[in-house]
Amino acid sequence: MVLLDICKNAKAAKPAMIKLSTKEKNGALLAVADGLIKDCGKILEANRIDYENGEKNGMNQGLLDRLKLDEKRVEAMAEGIREVSALEDPIGQEIEHFERPNGLKIKKIRVPLGVVGIIYESRPNVTADAFALTFKSGNVTILKGGSDAINSNIAITNSIRNTLQSLGITADAIQLIEATDRQVTTDFMKMKEYVDVLIPRGSAGLIRAVVENSNIPVIETGTGNCHIYVDKDADLKKAIPIIINAKTQRIGVCNAAESLIVHEDIMEKFLPEFEKAMKEHSVEVRADKPSKAYMSFAIDATEEDFGKEYLDYIISVKSVKCVDEAIDHINKYGTGHSEAIITENKETADKFLALVDAACVYVNASTRFTDGFEFGFGAEIGISTQKLHARGPMGLKELTSYKYQIYGNGQTRK
Amino acid sequence: MVLLDICKNAKAAKPAMIKLSTKEKNGALLAVADGLIKDCGKILEANRIDYENGEKNGMNQGLLDRLKLDEKRVEAMAEGIREVSALEDPIGQEIEHFERPNGLKIKKIRVPLGVVGIIYESRPNVTADAFALTFKSGNVTILKGGSDAINSNIAITNSIRNTLQSLGITADAIQLIEATDRQVTTDFMKMKEYVDVLIPRGSAGLIRAVVENSNIPVIETGTGNCHIYVDKDADLKKAIPIIINAKTQRIGVCNAAESLIVHEDIMEKFLPEFEKAMKEHSVEVRADKPSKAYMSFAIDATEEDFGKEYLDYIISVKSVKCVDEAIDHINKYGTGHSEAIITENKETADKFLALVDAACVYVNASTRFTDGFEFGFGAEIGISTQKLHARGPMGLKELTSYKYQIYGNGQTRK
Repeated sequence: MVLLDICKNAKAAKPAMIKLSTKEKNGALLAVADGLIKDCGKILEANRIDYENGEKNGMNQGLLDRLKLDEKRVEAMAEGIREVSALEDPIGQEIEHFERPNGLKIKKIRVPLGVVGIIYESRPNVTADAFALTFKSGNVTILKGGSDAINSNIAITNSIRNTLQSLGITADAIQLIEATDRQVTTDFMKMKEYVDVLIPRGSAGLIRAVVENSNIPVIETGTGNCHIYVDKDADLKKAIPIIINAKTQRIGVCNAAESLIVHEDIMEKFLPEFEKAMKEHSVEVRADKPSKAYMSFAIDATEEDFGKEYLDYIISVKSVKCVDEAIDHINKYGTGHSEAIITENKETADKFLALVDAACVYVNASTRFTDGFEFGFGAEIGISTQKLHARGPMGLKELTSYKYQIYGNGQTRK
Repeated sequence: MVLLDICKNAKAAKPAMIKLSTKEKNGALLAVADGLIKDCGKILEANRIDYENGEKNGMNQGLLDRLKLDEKRVEAMAEGIREVSALEDPIGQEIEHFERPNGLKIKKIRVPLGVVGIIYESRPNVTADAFALTFKSGNVTILKGGSDAINSNIAITNSIRNTLQSLGITADAIQLIEATDRQVTTDFMKMKEYVDVLIPRGSAGLIRAVVENSNIPVIETGTGNCHIYVDKDADLKKAIPIIINAKTQRIGVCNAAESLIVHEDIMEKFLPEFEKAMKEHSVEVRADKPSKAYMSFAIDATEEDFGKEYLDYIISVKSVKCVDEAIDHINKYGTGHSEAIITENKETADKFLALVDAACVYVNASTRFTDGFEFGFGAEIGISTQKLHARGPMGLKELTSYKYQIYGNGQTRK
């Protein structure tokens, strides 16, 4: 189908989505989960084609692994959808209500965003995941997945659409853009007349391209150049495990730490211990001059290192004279994602919490907790690094807007 | 000053703004108001130059009137700033807090958006107004006003900056882009590294240009193609005054009605009365075929009429067979601003409230109430017609974002 028709269908499906009750949505999600299990054979067959193409095209092992589906992964997809069906429905919730002196009664009600476009890269489970979250929040979704996973995505989308159709629900609640040329992605970003919000999920390059080219409002997700600042008043017994966790528990994720900032007063005591821990976890250390003096294996950091989201077994080290310098460094090089301070000094912690400009600011905890599930949202569509609309982990509530419903009795403005 | 330096200064001023207490901000706003009165002579002198240039350049009377300042208008500007100083400070408010099973304590705190860029057209009072709202909400602002009002805007901005400086507050809380070429405006829209949000205020053309060209998140404001739907179950004694009010009380504003939708069952009874009222208020009526048959002076409406924000003494009329057709028409031609139904039928009203996709949906009241003051917000930076971040009238709270502050005790992720 051509892009324009996909967009028109999506817009036309909005009223039907608003009319669905919570019970209907939850029932549909459970049926979609069952449908995926039932269609598992077809999905795995499609996925095998993508995988073989990936191998032929020299895709690296990490990406091949993210692309690959098996029975267990399809079951996990289905289970994820079931979990979303059990979450609270945000739609129709009254956010507030008030009455004006002229008698107007004003209600602020949570409503779907409308048509949510999602542009993502090669993980096919995002297809099922994004559907569950947008559907539960009453939205219509148009998905543009990576061309590497196109056959898998078509199979998953078809399974979902068939289930919806069998329940008498508009299948256009989810549509996949099947064209794989780059032009269609660029054209998609210009469909402001039909698409209410665009959410890119993937590499920093993908997100930048969307921000640069879209005329649809975008929610930026995911780039994380996260810092851990070890203050002079830090409890080093907390610092070391937190740094190991934030740096090495999963290196390829946006809430992983990329840089250590250290107060110069504790460098002598702390850095050798830090370097030992990094060595044990095969992490390369790139340090500025003052900090490097206290380490044996660290190499020189360049200015460029401080602006880098490595997503690798590398950490940069920057020494500072005070917490203010640490805050300035973070506000200069950070991406507004997650930042942590290790300190037992409440005053220093409060300053850091107040002045670091990021979605999530931690005292004595790992940055790895920036996550919808860890926050207890029960789901996550991404982590916003912008300040408009939503900041940090985005669950169902963040996929909604609101409207004012105003009840009058003939009022006119004076 | 060159644009890049203005943007850098703005970003550098953010921490100082976050450190200001509510008391300091309120005191500064009162001092700024006094300063404007004190500088009234200079401001009027600068405004006279703009006005004379406007006359020379053949500016029309309406625009000249909006441009013109006198003592009373400067006093009104100062009074507006004083009113903002009396409003509740949203910054630092705790939106929610919760504790996770692992002991992490999470607080969601209201914070400024950061650097707010405002691009607007020739009314110089917007300069003072925008400053008051962004300052009170802890933001730094960069203003790009219309070239027609450049001298007035410079005088107002200088007065504000001098007052701030005399109080030891960073004058860069407000900066004006003094260059008046178009290129600087386009360049400004690309300053994503420094500017957190861009709010265009003005004509539909200006807003479209910002949406098309900006890589900074934009809050779209103001375009309003608002409809009044008179249902078959309408109380006509309410309908006529509401339509007169919505259409004629102020024709040039975004919440004015531009179109009447009428149920065919009541055309015979209602339309002659409607036409009489429009005639008495010098409003031209452009009607579709079925409705025109019941009127004597109406002219033919074209398809184009239904998509038009006239901002003039003109109203279009569209007849429908049922409320669903009215809803579809509004969702096709509306701009998501303000829409009203006149009916005594609760079921019909509920359907209209649920399915019309707009910021403000009214039952039996004028669309003219879509306004921050009428809603009781005490202030207004604009009316958002998008669904991301804020929808409808935007006051101080809508000029904020939030951050998560997380208190741990050494927690790491499993």
